[in-house]
Amino acid sequence: MQALVLEKKGNVQLRDIDIQDDLGPEDVRIRPLAVGVCGSDVHYYREGNIGDFVVRQPMVLGHEAAGAVVEIGSDVKHLKVGDRVCMEPGVPDFTSYEALRGMYNLDPSVRFWATPPVHGCLRETVVHPECLTFKLPDAVSFHEGALVEPVAIGVYSVNKAGLSSGDTVLVIGAGTIGIVTALAAEAAGCSRVFLADLKKEKLDFVKKHYREKITGIDLNDSDIKTVLKKHGIESVNVVFEASGSAKAYSGITQYLQPGGVLVLIGMPSGPVPLDVVGLQVKEITVKSIFRYVNIFPRVLDLIASGKLHVKPLITRVFAFKDSCSAFEYAARLPGGDVKIMIDMEND
Amino acid sequence: MQALVLEKKGNVQLRDIDIQDDLGPEDVRIRPLAVGVCGSDVHYYREGNIGDFVVRQPMVLGHEAAGAVVEIGSDVKHLKVGDRVCMEPGVPDFTSYEALRGMYNLDPSVRFWATPPVHGCLRETVVHPECLTFKLPDAVSFHEGALVEPVAIGVYSVNKAGLSSGDTVLVIGAGTIGIVTALAAEAAGCSRVFLADLKKEKLDFVKKHYREKITGIDLNDSDIKTVLKKHGIESVNVVFEASGSAKAYSGITQYLQPGGVLVLIGMPSGPVPLDVVGLQVKEITVKSIFRYVNIFPRVLDLIASGKLHVKPLITRVFAFKDSCSAFEYAARLPGGDVKIMIDMEND
Amino acid sequence: MQALVLEKKGNVQLRDIDIQDDLGPEDVRIRPLAVGVCGSDVHYYREGNIGDFVVRQPMVLGHEAAGAVVEIGSDVKHLKVGDRVCMEPGVPDFTSYEALRGMYNLDPSVRFWATPPVHGCLRETVVHPECLTFKLPDAVSFHEGALVEPVAIGVYSVNKAGLSSGDTVLVIGAGTIGIVTALAAEAAGCSRVFLADLKKEKLDFVKKHYREKITGIDLNDSDIKTVLKKHGIESVNVVFEASGSAKAYSGITQYLQPGGVLVLIGMPSGPVPLDVVGLQVKEITVKSIFRYVNIFPRVLDLIASGKLHVKPLITRVFAFKDSCSAFEYAARLPGGDVKIMIDMEND
Amino acid sequence: MQALVLEKKGNVQLRDIDIQDDLGPEDVRIRPLAVGVCGSDVHYYREGNIGDFVVRQPMVLGHEAAGAVVEIGSDVKHLKVGDRVCMEPGVPDFTSYEALRGMYNLDPSVRFWATPPVHGCLRETVVHPECLTFKLPDAVSFHEGALVEPVAIGVYSVNKAGLSSGDTVLVIGAGTIGIVTALAAEAAGCSRVFLADLKKEKLDFVKKHYREKITGIDLNDSDIKTVLKKHGIESVNVVFEASGSAKAYSGITQYLQPGGVLVLIGMPSGPVPLDVVGLQVKEITVKSIFRYVNIFPRVLDLIASGKLHVKPLITRVFAFKDSCSAFEYAARLPGGDVKIMIDMEND
Repeated sequence: MQALVLEKKGNVQLRDIDIQDDLGPEDVRIRPLAVGVCGSDVHYYREGNIGDFVVRQPMVLGHEAAGAVVEIGSDVKHLKVGDRVCMEPGVPDFTSYEALRGMYNLDPSVRFWATPPVHGCLRETVVHPECLTFKLPDAVSFHEGALVEPVAIGVYSVNKAGLSSGDTVLVIGAGTIGIVTALAAEAAGCSRVFLADLKKEKLDFVKKHYREKITGIDLNDSDIKTVLKKHGIESVNVVFEASGSAKAYSGITQYLQPGGVLVLIGMPSGPVPLDVVGLQVKEITVKSIFRYVNIFPRVLDLIASGKLHVKPLITRVFAFKDSCSAFEYAARLPGGDVKIMIDMEND
Repeated sequence: MQALVLEKKGNVQLRDIDIQDDLGPEDVRIRPLAVGVCGSDVHYYREGNIGDFVVRQPMVLGHEAAGAVVEIGSDVKHLKVGDRVCMEPGVPDFTSYEALRGMYNLDPSVRFWATPPVHGCLRETVVHPECLTFKLPDAVSFHEGALVEPVAIGVYSVNKAGLSSGDTVLVIGAGTIGIVTALAAEAAGCSRVFLADLKKEKLDFVKKHYREKITGIDLNDSDIKTVLKKHGIESVNVVFEASGSAKAYSGITQYLQPGGVLVLIGMPSGPVPLDVVGLQVKEITVKSIFRYVNIFPRVLDLIASGKLHVKPLITRVFAFKDSCSAFEYAARLPGGDVKIMIDMEND
Repeated sequence: MQALVLEKKGNVQLRDIDIQDDLGPEDVRIRPLAVGVCGSDVHYYREGNIGDFVVRQPMVLGHEAAGAVVEIGSDVKHLKVGDRVCMEPGVPDFTSYEALRGMYNLDPSVRFWATPPVHGCLRETVVHPECLTFKLPDAVSFHEGALVEPVAIGVYSVNKAGLSSGDTVLVIGAGTIGIVTALAAEAAGCSRVFLADLKKEKLDFVKKHYREKITGIDLNDSDIKTVLKKHGIESVNVVFEASGSAKAYSGITQYLQPGGVLVLIGMPSGPVPLDVVGLQVKEITVKSIFRYVNIFPRVLDLIASGKLHVKPLITRVFAFKDSCSAFEYAARLPGGDVKIMIDMEND
Repeated sequence: MQALVLEKKGNVQLRDIDIQDDLGPEDVRIRPLAVGVCGSDVHYYREGNIGDFVVRQPMVLGHEAAGAVVEIGSDVKHLKVGDRVCMEPGVPDFTSYEALRGMYNLDPSVRFWATPPVHGCLRETVVHPECLTFKLPDAVSFHEGALVEPVAIGVYSVNKAGLSSGDTVLVIGAGTIGIVTALAAEAAGCSRVFLADLKKEKLDFVKKHYREKITGIDLNDSDIKTVLKKHGIESVNVVFEASGSAKAYSGITQYLQPGGVLVLIGMPSGPVPLDVVGLQVKEITVKSIFRYVNIFPRVLDLIASGKLHVKPLITRVFAFKDSCSAFEYAARLPGGDVKIMIDMEND
């Protein structure tokens, strides 16, 4: 089948590849029709690895996907051929210690699309477990369906934070994940959502599309504490750290109320300096998240209901036949872009 | 001072009354400017009691109030004369077992406005602890401020339920509390909110003002299970019982998902039949709520932010001088009315 | 193989039966060596059904079991032939909605030993998933291993209650489940555990074996409230309802502190009368439990550490060859017995 | 009255001091009869400050105390003259934001005994709010009563961790707080409690008095991971960091299970290096604690019930008249001592 293959670091090809995809009784075969380009895809393309995950042989890229069911296994119960679906890209061992406890995302043996040596989904068909394949509501397009994966991180972070209606929150870092977390917090009933970053283009994007939902804080102009005060706010209920920058940890406890929650989403490259006493005098709880678990159906409901308006996040679309160009473009992604979508519907 | 006095069952008078209101160092004196009429006020007026709480001597009515600060005690820190405020009507012993544990609403010694023998706030001035008096944001009117008390029950119920963003919920009972609970659930990020009742006028009211937020279920026409299915929903994450009817408990577990939550808001007049095995096979958690605690500032934030749009709930306004008529009207309240407001600003 | 077969209501036979037990790659084959007799086994024997579960064809009894691994599947990772183990008797669909969320016990498609039409484990060998088969610590005997199943209900109830160290609790109902719940509560750090029942023999058993851990309340002599007061206790943090009696619900909220928890373990045969207002004025949370989930390893640790001393619960032992007699005896079980064990080791 | 006064850094005197102690209506006057010496007392003695809290004028030392009620205010409800009691040493503003939410320990305006400029309780009488004064059960001595304060930190940490019965835990740091935390974890139903430190004398103390409850890990001999493995344990459910050492944070996430909890008790002098990704891949929750809240009655129940055996912690007793010597001794405290008690009963 045709697939976008990362041959090795810096080299992608749209070419035929032979992948044996047996359909198990509880599996479905899906034709991907929209696939988002993730920072991790681009990182593998540019660097050839992410930490210990090294691309040692040609690997199909892509893990943010929606498509149509083209074949179903003998024990499939809820899906049928023709169903419009999106897919959760990590397949755990469903009987692992973690999976039995409702944390299948933490199973170390999880097989995740486009994480070496597992092929991704930028190809003609993929086989996937029915239980990780979710029907798109009529109101949700394939493009939106492909956005469910990155948006899931935001919705999961927000639900894990245990937000209460009317909370005021701060998100640090306005990359794609920071933006979707801010949107998810707003959709979850926060009365105020602040989003802080140094990158002007990102804040401009937010201002343009989400000014009524999110208040940007430009860290070039002022510090967080000052901006909060300007809005009559001493401290927030929850801080989401989505920048992955060690610098963000300096003074981070001062933004939080007593009993507040700090959610760690960004993945720093090394240890960060933590002010333990700063946490203690407010008895702050720190929660950390890894991808998401059991969240795709909720994200679909939120998009379908209009609570989450994600379409503006797609700032550029490439056809599948141009997907090499998509990666070249993404590799030098200017700040104004948020999500690049590869459209496989009309190929 | 002038006050609306319930002389005895069935007899209210707007007259002078002598109330000694000493201002303690941590108290403020407030001039009420808007006071909502609550079902409990009307119940005392019509019946002379609610359970063991019996009106044995003349009592000022009213406990849903907003107004202006006219005097402050010597140790008051955050409020000043002229501040626009609303008030939480129950004053606990702040060193009680319950209060020390953050549940001051459960302190049996709480003194609650217009609950015998404590006078209510339909009078020229009241003295109140600063810590239960909350500044109105500029965007919140006195009328909205007086709505905070009933709306607080909805927001508190929703936060106590521990809703997750994207939940689907069902509210049983479309009285004032049922409606505000449904609104609060929608504001808290639910993707679908169903509200079931037999009273057509209430459902019509909801349809007219909140059709995009709440889906009404007319129990005259169909049962809950059927309507849910029609919307593609097998079961909901949370059920709020806000009718107080024993009948509502029949089959109530069948609406809920495994691991779901049932929140008991309505107060039935006697024991209700509970299907224990129905709870067990889904491990449903039942939470019960009593008024609210630590919730007024959140409600104000939600109203100010536009997440909670409460103005339509005020379906009729009386001047303070006409407040006897307000109670006569309320005592035979037709179904179409939701909240009657007594406006004391222009007297 | 030899098996204890319930031919039909009132008729058990120890006889040869042909059961096809294919060993899957993630399964182990186990030789049961100790099997406890559960009230449900006896109920099927006496009545031929439990609710909608009707014995329509011969069924092997038994689901509380420990034994030795005799064969392992090709993908088994942690167990080997000869390992001493106990088994969790319900096998869910590991990709069901419930299982993915860590509630595999609530999966409606769970296959549970000795629940029609699924054969139980009173037979020479059984095949079981490795992930539901747990190695016995050296300090835990086969008899104790077979007790893990009923004790699991107590430990699970206690952990689900969310006990805090130093809590005072009340268990209503001194049947086997009530006793193990009381023991589990004591092991979980409660400072006081009360156990109330009408059955003198059960309270005598508790007094004889666990007098330092559990305080019995004989409901023939006095009511719960009076006994608590005699011990200087106004109310408890948690009540476990383990009697399944509708009568137990009358006045049950009065034993609980504000913010307390009521755990429903006993399964009443019909609706029970619930005092909703009694729950509300204390904001009591009601939790319900169904069997257990992810709890066997904890129970084993607690037994091995000496925190849970369960041996006295075995009040009578029958050899496998006498298992028909065991059931005849159990069917007319005098109150003094708690758990009858069938020993298959020396047959 | 006679009092142990810290005149200035390095200088304590037992002398007369004039303290005006008005008895409010909700206060009791107590004669302290046993007062423990805390590390913070000693720190003020040796250094003259703890962080920003500087001893600028003579201050009475002592905050771990039990004694007898000698006078009661007019509104006191539960205590009477002669009652044996212990006291919680921090008095908050009971109407503060934090106190209303059940976190009075986080109120920044709390007045804490022997924290400048507030006098401590090593004196003939003290006045204290009734609601922070707790009756000693008959089974609890004054010495044990004075231990409630430090033990409270352990019990509070354990309850805040949300331990489940049967958990395995690791405490890092075998100072007084580490030891009481390990004891509290054992009392809370943990099946295994490990306590790691470099100080041999502390581990010897634990071995001598608590060998059946706590397993010591001598960090001079081996690393934590190796010892856990030797006991057949891959990872623990909860880690309590009670050393306050930045070094303890290196690799701390590797001891924890997926979904585990890290509780920060020790107060490092500066930022510590936190491995964020290490937290994330296991979704570890970090909880931080500051003193304790609403925990004294539980600690008393646990001591009275025998679950917490704290007497061995008192390794040396001084008479009040020798309290200057007590501080001199404590200032050069050899490792074998845990708690020094000042006995005021026989002076």
